[in-house]
Amino acid sequence: MSCVARVPVQPMATNAPRTIVAGATGFTGALAAHLLWRHPDFELVAITGRSELGRELREVYPRYRVPLSFQELDVESLEGIDAAVVAYPHAAAAPTVAALRERGIRVVDLSADFRLRSLASYERWYGEHPRPELIEEAVYGLTELHRAQIVSAGLVANPGCYPTASLLALAPLARAGLIADVVIDAKQGISGAGRVFDETTHLSMAGENIVPYKVAGHRHTPEIEEQLNALASPSCAEADAPAPELKVQFQAHLVPLDQGEMASCYVTTTRPVVAEELRAIYLEAYDDEPFVELLLDGPPGVLEVRETNYCRVFAAADEHTDKVIAFGAIDNLWKGTSSQAVQNLNLMFGYPETRGLL
Amino acid sequence: MSCVARVPVQPMATNAPRTIVAGATGFTGALAAHLLWRHPDFELVAITGRSELGRELREVYPRYRVPLSFQELDVESLEGIDAAVVAYPHAAAAPTVAALRERGIRVVDLSADFRLRSLASYERWYGEHPRPELIEEAVYGLTELHRAQIVSAGLVANPGCYPTASLLALAPLARAGLIADVVIDAKQGISGAGRVFDETTHLSMAGENIVPYKVAGHRHTPEIEEQLNALASPSCAEADAPAPELKVQFQAHLVPLDQGEMASCYVTTTRPVVAEELRAIYLEAYDDEPFVELLLDGPPGVLEVRETNYCRVFAAADEHTDKVIAFGAIDNLWKGTSSQAVQNLNLMFGYPETRGLL
Amino acid sequence: MSCVARVPVQPMATNAPRTIVAGATGFTGALAAHLLWRHPDFELVAITGRSELGRELREVYPRYRVPLSFQELDVESLEGIDAAVVAYPHAAAAPTVAALRERGIRVVDLSADFRLRSLASYERWYGEHPRPELIEEAVYGLTELHRAQIVSAGLVANPGCYPTASLLALAPLARAGLIADVVIDAKQGISGAGRVFDETTHLSMAGENIVPYKVAGHRHTPEIEEQLNALASPSCAEADAPAPELKVQFQAHLVPLDQGEMASCYVTTTRPVVAEELRAIYLEAYDDEPFVELLLDGPPGVLEVRETNYCRVFAAADEHTDKVIAFGAIDNLWKGTSSQAVQNLNLMFGYPETRGLL
Amino acid sequence: MSCVARVPVQPMATNAPRTIVAGATGFTGALAAHLLWRHPDFELVAITGRSELGRELREVYPRYRVPLSFQELDVESLEGIDAAVVAYPHAAAAPTVAALRERGIRVVDLSADFRLRSLASYERWYGEHPRPELIEEAVYGLTELHRAQIVSAGLVANPGCYPTASLLALAPLARAGLIADVVIDAKQGISGAGRVFDETTHLSMAGENIVPYKVAGHRHTPEIEEQLNALASPSCAEADAPAPELKVQFQAHLVPLDQGEMASCYVTTTRPVVAEELRAIYLEAYDDEPFVELLLDGPPGVLEVRETNYCRVFAAADEHTDKVIAFGAIDNLWKGTSSQAVQNLNLMFGYPETRGLL
Repeated sequence: MSCVARVPVQPMATNAPRTIVAGATGFTGALAAHLLWRHPDFELVAITGRSELGRELREVYPRYRVPLSFQELDVESLEGIDAAVVAYPHAAAAPTVAALRERGIRVVDLSADFRLRSLASYERWYGEHPRPELIEEAVYGLTELHRAQIVSAGLVANPGCYPTASLLALAPLARAGLIADVVIDAKQGISGAGRVFDETTHLSMAGENIVPYKVAGHRHTPEIEEQLNALASPSCAEADAPAPELKVQFQAHLVPLDQGEMASCYVTTTRPVVAEELRAIYLEAYDDEPFVELLLDGPPGVLEVRETNYCRVFAAADEHTDKVIAFGAIDNLWKGTSSQAVQNLNLMFGYPETRGLL
Repeated sequence: MSCVARVPVQPMATNAPRTIVAGATGFTGALAAHLLWRHPDFELVAITGRSELGRELREVYPRYRVPLSFQELDVESLEGIDAAVVAYPHAAAAPTVAALRERGIRVVDLSADFRLRSLASYERWYGEHPRPELIEEAVYGLTELHRAQIVSAGLVANPGCYPTASLLALAPLARAGLIADVVIDAKQGISGAGRVFDETTHLSMAGENIVPYKVAGHRHTPEIEEQLNALASPSCAEADAPAPELKVQFQAHLVPLDQGEMASCYVTTTRPVVAEELRAIYLEAYDDEPFVELLLDGPPGVLEVRETNYCRVFAAADEHTDKVIAFGAIDNLWKGTSSQAVQNLNLMFGYPETRGLL
Repeated sequence: MSCVARVPVQPMATNAPRTIVAGATGFTGALAAHLLWRHPDFELVAITGRSELGRELREVYPRYRVPLSFQELDVESLEGIDAAVVAYPHAAAAPTVAALRERGIRVVDLSADFRLRSLASYERWYGEHPRPELIEEAVYGLTELHRAQIVSAGLVANPGCYPTASLLALAPLARAGLIADVVIDAKQGISGAGRVFDETTHLSMAGENIVPYKVAGHRHTPEIEEQLNALASPSCAEADAPAPELKVQFQAHLVPLDQGEMASCYVTTTRPVVAEELRAIYLEAYDDEPFVELLLDGPPGVLEVRETNYCRVFAAADEHTDKVIAFGAIDNLWKGTSSQAVQNLNLMFGYPETRGLL
Repeated sequence: MSCVARVPVQPMATNAPRTIVAGATGFTGALAAHLLWRHPDFELVAITGRSELGRELREVYPRYRVPLSFQELDVESLEGIDAAVVAYPHAAAAPTVAALRERGIRVVDLSADFRLRSLASYERWYGEHPRPELIEEAVYGLTELHRAQIVSAGLVANPGCYPTASLLALAPLARAGLIADVVIDAKQGISGAGRVFDETTHLSMAGENIVPYKVAGHRHTPEIEEQLNALASPSCAEADAPAPELKVQFQAHLVPLDQGEMASCYVTTTRPVVAEELRAIYLEAYDDEPFVELLLDGPPGVLEVRETNYCRVFAAADEHTDKVIAFGAIDNLWKGTSSQAVQNLNLMFGYPETRGLL
């Protein structure tokens, strides 16, 4: 071994749920493994990842001092595993999720495979769905929106990072039926491109750059739309008439930092909204949320939430245009993905939501 | 002197216009001085700046190898000066501009004082105007929009950097009367904050950050609106009815790089626009422009225009929302300010527009 | 208050030592407060700082979610305080340290005032010493070198960040009497300049730069020399003859990142040292250290220790020159300053050394 | 074509030497092509590069607005070419250089193949030499050291970037016979790693990092040693006795910026040197150099020379250790490689040395 480093002692509760991370070679899987390893109430028993077989995670990611070695995933041989985080690409994730579910293992899936309620929408953006029969069971894992269902879920479809920041910024408005139209301009650090080695991530090309990508066609768009529309029409029974289907204009940009994401949301409202009402709506929505920090005097910077599970939200009425602007700031790898997965696991296994995340 | 450095020889044309830069201690004035110093057809005879009196510009800005020392500005004593670049804050600029104009010196003013045609608009955003009588004379210095007038102008009001990027991205649509509504989300490097030393610019605070600023109230907004509305209604005579006044939702963000600016413009169109028409409109607008690089296959990154006078433009129709998205990428200090000032000076003194800027 | 954020619950042991941080407005004091606030076994009862009186620490440093407000320090009125971290500039620290000691409060001083055993050396580099009588009592707080004394110390002089990285890289060689001559070339992120707003820290000037500073005269030099010489001559009794006084050539550089520091140490040895012996020496020194990670195959990067109390060390024999090169990588704000202060407090109050730091 | 951009007009002298760049797909070859394209006195007629065949250079490197397409190199078919810049890896360069020389084409080779005078030294560091017979003909292309020979050279071996910065910092001391021992600690931006896509260059891994590499074995070491020893012993005839062979301890580090390189050189002198003598030695060496900027009051930052052919040098006597410290700051891609190649071409073809480089 190349490093004579003492492994930090992991004080472990008895009867801690036994967990694995499938696909821990990428940024988000590796971080999920790190968070579970240092979590006082989960036991991380294995990590898998074909591209780094046999290497320890702490060699591949020195910042994450996890002394487990990457194994090949063999679902059939898993015994006594309570939960799995699956960090595979879309389409590749679904069959593994299905196999894990068949063995009774509760799953938090970081892929897009079970995020959309609408199969038609999935197929339009991603192609054929490998396991459509599981869509029904899946709960959309934006904790603050679906907490009650997550508690008892067998399969949690962890949201994309852009939907996390965007929906937390917009949910109070959506729930109040105030969104007539919305433009979301999102900016993200280079870690959002993942452990990909090309011109997108080379410091000499990405370092002093601002680059829009996937113009007018980012796959996080339908996820945001589906959730916003669901928030606006909570139940058919209550509504006199269905709200018109909202379409979201979403655009992502890469900016030269490592971790951090800002969703700037420009809302044309269904009726005029003044500052006081706006404040009341957001206060009511987030006053009790442990991981949403509502700002009242000005917008957040993403550095304020770096390497935390917090989302900072700020909303303002623009008197000049009569629109509303709302910001959501997160760490794309943490609240945007991996720490939110742990937040969900906490709920699923009856722990305080903040356990291991403060 | 602290540096034994040979001053690069400046090959100077005979009868080169004699120029000064007033307020060359800030980022934009210093760059204007640098560009004029190395320009083959202008003579830079003096730079002024009270905060660095007596120091050479190349000491304060080692990258700009200009061996002139900062002087106090004394307009009354100026003799034989043909042109001045004024890089003062708004309100402070106007009296100096007026004094220079009285001595027959042609001026490119980098401040906001003469950018707005509407005095009422100026007063709403900036307060009382020190020299309203000069507004009439001033030509708005976005070269690509007002080239003909700039050629003979005595006073050019150089645009703000955000309006430069935004207007070049949007002008073809505005001219075609296609903009019903527009949201502009702009991102800029830290040099946009200027030679200001505070939490906004400290690398430890700005470095891994994305920060929205001046939420719903950036002073570049009226400048963009005035120009877009003028483009949409070129002449009262031609119009059957005045176009409805367009209001722009503009939001600026600081991102962690030095120089570079991206305006992402989200346009609700007055009628459906397909990709082919969009392409034709932009090609017609920019085919002959020496400093606008129209991209056809995908959006630009700001690194592509760093330290150049180019603006890269890309527009796409979003079939999902029926909106149009247009991007303008510039170097905020160059085309956004100082090199555009030189582009204008080239026109004003009969030189090829690209002289000294390639 | 500008932020509606829930304060993370601080689970606090009964009878936890009550602590204050004096001078928590700077980077290191603020971090010390953050680390003590979230520490399970210390109670942070107050923070002081004149420049931000009345503001909460979490407003000034949003990343540090400490809801205490800055107070004025009034040592006379302190009651029931067990320990203090003092984060004042040199010379300003000593009188406060003395006042705290008089009230029986155990102190970790982050300043340079009590780091040097030699008063003459202090006076040569810093000027007159305000409280020379306390030098005797002070223990040099590089935990790995003086652990036994720190346990019972009333006053710990926390090391400078450069000495921490340099000494951990060099201590095994020094102890073995192997250092005949050493050059230390250190590189540090911009946070090392502190909460100082000038050309040193402005992202546009520091961002794409590498800048040596304090050429041939950094005040951390005598601190490194004193410790290396002490390591080489552990006791007069044992030595046949005093080792010749070692002089260190130390040079610091700022590089464009936030937190992180690398000391590259070039050692002319007193006799030839081959790789095997080198490895054995370092393994013996660091095998049991909880916060020193000894690398065996190649040098560390500072990102590997970012926001941790770890120091990563690597040493290699250079067959070409017969010299040894040793690297020490730390986070300058953490192990370099504030987390090492907590490591020392853990020892002083009988807690496991790693408590609150993993 | 994806970009409707006007190609900047290249005003070309008649009878301009016709040049090619072989291997223009990498960072240094591409920059050499850019510099020759915009040079008023050279005609760039072709660029080659197998990995990007058919693409225009300005597509691959948008910052370099060169509208030539990459071709396959076919030396046999070259007609009327006066000069070539060869930007191939070591060992691959030599055969191409030989073929070009056979056709009478003057070559600036950016590889290491002809930098060392000693074949034995080459073979120890690089393996077998493909064309040892050409070593004799080659002139080492550090312009300031070998100007007279470069003027008439057929083959110029352009120096490595580290030797360029180090030798310009040290040459005055070496020439005066003052270097008894030297440690060189060099820091470089990520562009020094080249157009390589891996963990070394990924912004998320390189961005907040400082990483030593090639510990105790960088191939630039023998190049520095050979030149320093040659400077110390200018001619056998003059010397009473050969100076002892100097060995250099050289260590490179990557730091998170794009372009820029600092060589910090720690010199044990052969006899005491005071500040006045040091100053006189450096002034004499560099007073007339167009591209060496000698600082007298403090060290340079690399930002001061970014995207220029300048090297900034500063030397100081360290009274504490009686050593001398000397700094050389360059842009690794410019003076470190490609602009120095153009500087050499200027000399080779009788143009002013600064032509096209100010």
